[in-house]
Amino acid sequence: MTNTIVKAFGATASTEDLKPLDIERRATGKDDIKIDITYCGVCHSDIHMARNDWKGASYPVVPGHEIIGRVLEVGANVSTHKIGDLVGVGCMVDSCQTCSSCQQDLEQFCENGATFTYNSPDKHLEGKQTYGGYSTSVVVDEKFVLRIPGNLDEAATAPLLCAGVTTWSPLTHWKVKKGDKVGVIGLGGLGHMGVKFANALGAHVVMITTSPEKGKDAKRLGAHEVLVSKDQVEMKKHQGSFDFILNTIPVGHEMDPYLGLLKIDATMVLVGAIEPLEPFSGGNIIMGRKRIAGSLIGGIKETQEMLDFCGKHNITSDIELIDMQNINTAYDRILKNDVTYRFVIDMKSLK
Amino acid sequence: MTNTIVKAFGATASTEDLKPLDIERRATGKDDIKIDITYCGVCHSDIHMARNDWKGASYPVVPGHEIIGRVLEVGANVSTHKIGDLVGVGCMVDSCQTCSSCQQDLEQFCENGATFTYNSPDKHLEGKQTYGGYSTSVVVDEKFVLRIPGNLDEAATAPLLCAGVTTWSPLTHWKVKKGDKVGVIGLGGLGHMGVKFANALGAHVVMITTSPEKGKDAKRLGAHEVLVSKDQVEMKKHQGSFDFILNTIPVGHEMDPYLGLLKIDATMVLVGAIEPLEPFSGGNIIMGRKRIAGSLIGGIKETQEMLDFCGKHNITSDIELIDMQNINTAYDRILKNDVTYRFVIDMKSLK
Repeated sequence: MTNTIVKAFGATASTEDLKPLDIERRATGKDDIKIDITYCGVCHSDIHMARNDWKGASYPVVPGHEIIGRVLEVGANVSTHKIGDLVGVGCMVDSCQTCSSCQQDLEQFCENGATFTYNSPDKHLEGKQTYGGYSTSVVVDEKFVLRIPGNLDEAATAPLLCAGVTTWSPLTHWKVKKGDKVGVIGLGGLGHMGVKFANALGAHVVMITTSPEKGKDAKRLGAHEVLVSKDQVEMKKHQGSFDFILNTIPVGHEMDPYLGLLKIDATMVLVGAIEPLEPFSGGNIIMGRKRIAGSLIGGIKETQEMLDFCGKHNITSDIELIDMQNINTAYDRILKNDVTYRFVIDMKSLK
Repeated sequence: MTNTIVKAFGATASTEDLKPLDIERRATGKDDIKIDITYCGVCHSDIHMARNDWKGASYPVVPGHEIIGRVLEVGANVSTHKIGDLVGVGCMVDSCQTCSSCQQDLEQFCENGATFTYNSPDKHLEGKQTYGGYSTSVVVDEKFVLRIPGNLDEAATAPLLCAGVTTWSPLTHWKVKKGDKVGVIGLGGLGHMGVKFANALGAHVVMITTSPEKGKDAKRLGAHEVLVSKDQVEMKKHQGSFDFILNTIPVGHEMDPYLGLLKIDATMVLVGAIEPLEPFSGGNIIMGRKRIAGSLIGGIKETQEMLDFCGKHNITSDIELIDMQNINTAYDRILKNDVTYRFVIDMKSLK
């Protein structure tokens, strides 16, 4: 078997639009699965990487880490999936498998560096980097290939691979349970999944937003209440009442008002804002012994658990399907928060 | 029995030095214990309250919440202590005893408002507020009176009632155990107790400081290593290696360098800085699923557990004994960090 050249879409510089490219995929090794990509979700991180917002991008950048497809080929050692299976690939395609993090199913924190789905050094193609799911096919180690429940809408399943597990992981890590009062701050790609999951876990879900007009849709998605964070009177009523808050705000922001909402010993988890936050008052966590924690995507085991949960509870993402050729318009719309709630690329358009 | 007038030292305005005052103490009620105060520790909070740094001070302010003394009188219902016993009183003298926090032995978070040892509305003297331990005696509900192990130096035990439990509580709440690598940031009244406790709990203790000259004393107190936080090379060596960090810095500060020291899933607890912290990068807790938490003194049950632990491990505070009349000089020295590590007032000087 030999490497193949496949069609893709990518950026050749931070200031360039995405355009058609040809990229190399490795031959299917003995532990590998070759996947015919049918759908790929569009994550805000894709834009950050294409435009080098986080620095460190190396071009061409072929984004995409919410990949759905069918198994085309399997290596000799592969036992978990067979040709024709519906599968998914998320933010990672490899890790060392031997460090303490990997042993604990936390490949995202691999001490030797996880191989991310795009823009990571490629272990298999010397001197090259990984290219993501904005392409017709991909070859991935079977350990990083997920089973997709057959009852779910295929396209709407794609965002579960990143937005899904990013919100699922903290909710389950912090043991959100039936009857807990859970706040979800921000109603975007991450937030709308947070609302669905918290609802399905049996929590009393409060959508916390600066935009009252999002209230109706939040309730459709599973929120029991909507709390407009600019409304001081309402914020005061909810003071000290939350068991858990999932904070999906993707940029630096003021945390003090949200910390006031937490109960004693309760936790607010940040999943969006990697940049500097506004100063918060130490007293707001010292009083009530509160916690601010972070969470990054999730390990492969919990990603599979999340997908199985979605199959059981019939949960997918709310999406807008687009053709590959419209990706630049989609990026512009994401930057204006004009998407409900995730773009997914129909990869037929590239074939 | 009638109320009594006793000698005290206090501030009559935020800009005034402390001076001799006469204050009223209630008669010993059926659940009360009257204590002849022998020693009282001097906490930085005493200065903040006397000088109205936190606003809300009502004058006269009689500070002091690290009280040691002998039982003088007990009410009819008192069963826990008897006349002549060595006892202590910390930051609280009452709470509702019925709310969910009180039921969980977290009186410091009493939902109806704990009565703090000074400057809280006094339930027993209508229209008055509580006066602290800078005085010859105090009357306290037995539930807030602690047993002091007889083997410990009496004066050096006083600071355990606030500085002790403030550092003990997060170390035990977050389950610091034998072999854990524990950092203690800041070597003052709180930090020096943190080092002693972490050592006694079997941790590998690293004193983290900006002042290399504190290293020698840190080791005498029980630190196994000293990490100078200004030394970038050393900070890098310790990157991602701490199971727990106790942060005793009493003012706003930059947290990012310390967050980098934490392991995956590890926690840094703030016990000192109630004011706004410098902005930290969300990415520093998102990567590694780290946590920033707060902790406030401790409940009565855990205060007793801490005192019993101190008795067993022969732990007290390192103190400088002063006369009541020298309190204003002591305040000035505290503000210049010129104390190793806690002033304790010998109350004989006031009698």
